[in-house]
Amino acid sequence: MRRVMLTVAYDGTKYHGYQIQDNADTIEGELTRVLRDLTGEVNSLIGGSRTDAGVHAKSNVAVFDTDVRIPGEKFKYALNQKLPEDIRVVESRDVAEDFHPRHCDTKKTYEYRILNSEISDPIKRLYSYHIYTPLDVERMREAAAFMEGEHDFKSFCAEGAQVESTVRNVYTVEVEDEYTGKETSRLKEKDIIIRVSGNGFLYNMVRIMAGTLIEVGRGHIEPQRVKDIIEACDRKEAGPTAPACGLTLVKYEFL
Amino acid sequence: MRRVMLTVAYDGTKYHGYQIQDNADTIEGELTRVLRDLTGEVNSLIGGSRTDAGVHAKSNVAVFDTDVRIPGEKFKYALNQKLPEDIRVVESRDVAEDFHPRHCDTKKTYEYRILNSEISDPIKRLYSYHIYTPLDVERMREAAAFMEGEHDFKSFCAEGAQVESTVRNVYTVEVEDEYTGKETSRLKEKDIIIRVSGNGFLYNMVRIMAGTLIEVGRGHIEPQRVKDIIEACDRKEAGPTAPACGLTLVKYEFL
Repeated sequence: MRRVMLTVAYDGTKYHGYQIQDNADTIEGELTRVLRDLTGEVNSLIGGSRTDAGVHAKSNVAVFDTDVRIPGEKFKYALNQKLPEDIRVVESRDVAEDFHPRHCDTKKTYEYRILNSEISDPIKRLYSYHIYTPLDVERMREAAAFMEGEHDFKSFCAEGAQVESTVRNVYTVEVEDEYTGKETSRLKEKDIIIRVSGNGFLYNMVRIMAGTLIEVGRGHIEPQRVKDIIEACDRKEAGPTAPACGLTLVKYEFL
Repeated sequence: MRRVMLTVAYDGTKYHGYQIQDNADTIEGELTRVLRDLTGEVNSLIGGSRTDAGVHAKSNVAVFDTDVRIPGEKFKYALNQKLPEDIRVVESRDVAEDFHPRHCDTKKTYEYRILNSEISDPIKRLYSYHIYTPLDVERMREAAAFMEGEHDFKSFCAEGAQVESTVRNVYTVEVEDEYTGKETSRLKEKDIIIRVSGNGFLYNMVRIMAGTLIEVGRGHIEPQRVKDIIEACDRKEAGPTAPACGLTLVKYEFL
């Protein structure tokens, strides 16, 4: 028996999230189906991040055990031939038999994309959140700095989530802006990318961070209030959960 | 009676092209439906570029006549409320009563996007053409230069197209590359953008130009042979028609 790790990219638009479910299309469901079809075994996957319905990934990970004699790095070609076009295995390789992607020290990086423009863009609509209120990126950056570091992120965790500890270490929160060149009297059109790296994230955490930073950008929350929001340990103090389509898991690194 | 011009952006993925047809979803069909719904009139549109099935636009144009007393610049808001999310009116304004978008001197700019990578990218798949053979962008640039200028582009026109003249003036053909940072022994992954501006284009012309440049990039056609291909005035001499999904009409300018 050996263990193989897959790095997986997907367009989450039409899936009910990563985690396998009966009677719903999921990323893990598709991967399991094509893997069993390839190996003839009853493989089960151990996933890295259980991304939500509608969330995308450039780089999520999953491992499985097999006795099949396909070299680790060849699995990607074989699986991609059977997978739908909105899911790709971008890398595959052999790992240690006891390797578990959720029991390692990891650095995960998410990007939350916003299109801040008068009118939405059909070509960006599936992969970013359209906001027509002008957002002040400087204020968002100021607020983002308070989110960095090891904190109890209970205020940024969906209510009802079952979790032992709500303490997480957020390494960096960057807010990038790229002007598109279009401009009206109200607004200079821009893409805003909120890039968050950390050792792990609570349920909906990045989307609640993004929703809070958006409220700061609109002028509804003062940047320095983010400190109080964290200290409150109360979901009601933070901003709304930003929509799933803007979120992409871009990197999953083992430290 | 007055005439109003719309600038229209769309994701062409699920449409049977721009031009209205019975029993098929088209961009013009959707625009006509929501316009008639808004005005209560039997408006018809005069379109700019009749893009093919699956081709996208950031900026196509259409005009229509109306007696409705909505200010020109307000039409976009009213129409966007009724349009599906994959079509947006990005601008609307009053124009002269005899303004005809196809009887003006224009500069149209198309971009053809290629993802040159080992494995395709689910998030780019709807808006670019994936090629895993390494493409030599320098060779493509060399070939592109021969396509610039006023030529008879018969070799780059779909066979059977009904058209008075196959002479067109191509102002510029640029080939841009952006490395993504991913690399294998075979290939440095990159996005390639072929940007073509001209006074007008024949049926499938940009896609045949892209298909020919791709053959040059693969090493199957020598860059300087593009001169002979143009002179041959024979569709069979040029490369294949590259797939629609990579093509976007990005600018439509009136000179």
